[in-house]
Amino acid sequence: VTRALVDSVLHVHAGRFVADGVSPLDLDVILSRVTEWADWFPAWADVGDEYERRGHEALVLGRTVSAGEFFWRASISYHYAQFLFFQDRLRREHGQQRKEQLYAAAAPLLVPRAERFDIAIDDVTIPGYLRLPPGVPAAPVVVLIGGLESTKEESYEFENALLRRGLATCTFDGPGQGEMRAQLPYRPDFERYCAAVVDWLQDRSELDPDRVAVLGRSLGGYYAVRSAAFDRRIRACVVWGAVYEMPPWDRLPELTRMGFHYVSGERREEDARRLLTESIDLRGVASGIRGGLLVLHGARDDLIPADQAQRVSGEAARADPNTLWVEPEGNHCCHNLSTIIRPGMADWLSERLAPGTGMI
Amino acid sequence: VTRALVDSVLHVHAGRFVADGVSPLDLDVILSRVTEWADWFPAWADVGDEYERRGHEALVLGRTVSAGEFFWRASISYHYAQFLFFQDRLRREHGQQRKEQLYAAAAPLLVPRAERFDIAIDDVTIPGYLRLPPGVPAAPVVVLIGGLESTKEESYEFENALLRRGLATCTFDGPGQGEMRAQLPYRPDFERYCAAVVDWLQDRSELDPDRVAVLGRSLGGYYAVRSAAFDRRIRACVVWGAVYEMPPWDRLPELTRMGFHYVSGERREEDARRLLTESIDLRGVASGIRGGLLVLHGARDDLIPADQAQRVSGEAARADPNTLWVEPEGNHCCHNLSTIIRPGMADWLSERLAPGTGMI
Repeated sequence: VTRALVDSVLHVHAGRFVADGVSPLDLDVILSRVTEWADWFPAWADVGDEYERRGHEALVLGRTVSAGEFFWRASISYHYAQFLFFQDRLRREHGQQRKEQLYAAAAPLLVPRAERFDIAIDDVTIPGYLRLPPGVPAAPVVVLIGGLESTKEESYEFENALLRRGLATCTFDGPGQGEMRAQLPYRPDFERYCAAVVDWLQDRSELDPDRVAVLGRSLGGYYAVRSAAFDRRIRACVVWGAVYEMPPWDRLPELTRMGFHYVSGERREEDARRLLTESIDLRGVASGIRGGLLVLHGARDDLIPADQAQRVSGEAARADPNTLWVEPEGNHCCHNLSTIIRPGMADWLSERLAPGTGMI
Repeated sequence: VTRALVDSVLHVHAGRFVADGVSPLDLDVILSRVTEWADWFPAWADVGDEYERRGHEALVLGRTVSAGEFFWRASISYHYAQFLFFQDRLRREHGQQRKEQLYAAAAPLLVPRAERFDIAIDDVTIPGYLRLPPGVPAAPVVVLIGGLESTKEESYEFENALLRRGLATCTFDGPGQGEMRAQLPYRPDFERYCAAVVDWLQDRSELDPDRVAVLGRSLGGYYAVRSAAFDRRIRACVVWGAVYEMPPWDRLPELTRMGFHYVSGERREEDARRLLTESIDLRGVASGIRGGLLVLHGARDDLIPADQAQRVSGEAARADPNTLWVEPEGNHCCHNLSTIIRPGMADWLSERLAPGTGMI
C-alpha cells in the first residue's frame, strides 16, 4: 500500500523534480532508498544535509559560487523532502524551515544573486526574492507565483531561463504558502498580496514599472489569473497549469487533499473542503484580464482536467493575445515536457514585455 | 550479447549524458527505445531531429534564445548518437557532421554566444569556439580539451559553470578529434596544436594573455598535461580523468578499442595499437609543468586505473600547487559525481586565474 503511494507521487509528478533542478544522479540515489512513503523524507534530507556540508566547506574556502550552488541544492532537496509529507507534520515543518534557511544562505551567492525582501501588509509580511538580469537597465519583471505546495524557493531553474532573456524575476510566498502560511493561511483574495508585491516593484529603479507580468504554476495559475484580472499594471499572465475551479474533493489523490487541507488552515477537513470549493472559482474573473494571457496545460494531467484550461482561456474574452496551449502528452504542468514548455513560456513572456510592445 | 554492449556503455559512462546536459526525461525515452546496440544511433537521432525542428520553428518566430537551446539539444543528441557507434561508420560520420552543423547553428544564439574560429597551422585548420563572460574586461580563459570521443561541441554545460565564475572558455578540435580528424588523425604532438590556439588567444583584446589555463577530459587529460608541460604561458592545468600511459590494449572494452583505432587513422588495428602504446606515455613530461596542476580521478574508473592519476601528479614535482583529487566512489571522469566535481574544478581554476595570484 505505502509503495503504491510512492509510485503514485512519482507518476503524477513525473519530470518535476529534475525539471526544478534536482540532479537525476541524486534522484536515482534517493529513489533507491525509498521503499515505502515513510522513507521519502529521510532519503531527500540526507542528500540535502550532504550538500549543506559541502556548502559550508566551500564558503570557508571562499568558493562562493559553489557555496551558492550547494546551498541551493540542499534547499531543493529539503523542499522535496517535505513535499506532500503530511504523515509527520513536525518533520514536514522542520523540512520547510530547513528549505527556507538553506535558500536564504544560497540567495546572496547565486549568479545573479537573489535579493531578499519583506513587504508589510496589514499585520503580516510578504517574504520574497528579486533577481536582476545583469546589464539590463530598467528590466521588465516577471512575478512567479507558486502553487499548493510550491514556495518562493522552488523556481531557481525557471528564473534562470527568464534571466537569460533579460527579464528580472520576483518570487514570493502568499497566503497559505511557505513562510507565510504560519502567519496567514489560504485566503480567497490572493490578488491583494500580489498587488502589494507589484506596488513594491514600482519603486525599484532597476525595473521598468510598466513591464510587469505574472506567472503562476498549478494552483498558482489560479492565483495568477485573479492577480492579473484585478490589477491593470500586470501586462501579461501565464497560467502554467490551469485551475478554473476546485476539482471534486473526493477524486483528488489523498496527499493532494491533505495539501489543500493543510493550506486552508482549517482544523476540520470538512471546513477546508467547503472553504476551498466555494472560493476557488474563476467565474466572472478571467474576463477582467486585458493584457496578454497564455494558458498551458497537459492533456494527461491527472490532477486537473484540461477542460479547466479551456474554460480559463474561453472566458478571458478581452485578453490579447489569448493563447491556449494544450500539450497532448503533457502531465500536470507538463513537467514531463520541461525542455519544450519552459523555453516556450519564457519566450512568450519575453515577447509580451519587450520594449515597444504596449498592449493595454 | 548486444544488450550486454548497451549495458556496458551505460555502466562505464553512468552519469555522463545528463551531466553534459542531456535531459534525463529525454534519456529515459531514448533508453526505452534501445534494446540492442543497433538501436542506439536512431533513438538519439530521433530526439535530435525533433529538437532541430523546434529550433527552426523558434527561429522563424524570432525566439533566438530558445532556438539556440533547441539547436544545442539537437547537437548533443547527435553527439551521443554517434558516440562509440563504430558498427556503422557511414552513419557515425553523418552523426558527427550533424552534431557540428547543429552546434554551429546554436553557437551565435547561446547566452553568452559561442564565437567560431579557425586557426591555420601547416596546411590544416584548427576549428573552435570562444565564449566570453559578460561584463568581465580582460577575462582569464580556460582552454578545454576533449578526449577520445569528445569534441568541441560537448562542453556547453561545463563552460557555463566557468562563465558564471567570470572565466572565458575556448574549445577546439585537435588532431584525431571531431572536425579535424578527417584532415589530421591522432599525432603524438598534440601540444603544438594547443599552443597554436594559445597563440591565437594572445591577440584577443577581451582576454588577459597572462591568465590562460587548460583542462582536458579523459584522454584530453593526457593532452592537457603535454600542453601545459611544453608551454609556459599556461598557468594552470586540470586533468579531468588521468591517462599516464596507454592501458593494455586487450583489457579495454571493445568499443573503446575501436575508438582508439579510429582516432589513430591507421588502417590496421595492430598499427593503431603500436602507435598509441608507444606514444601515449607521460614519462619525463609531467615534470615540465611549472604552473598549478589538479589531477582528478575516480577510484572506480573502469577504463583507466587510479594509479595513473597518482603517477601524473607524482611526477609533476615542480607543479605548484599540485593537487591530487581521487574520489572513492567516482567512475570514469567521476561523471557519476558531476554536481560535486564540476564546481570543484571550476573553483580551482578560478582561484588559479584570479587577479593577483601569479604563480610562475
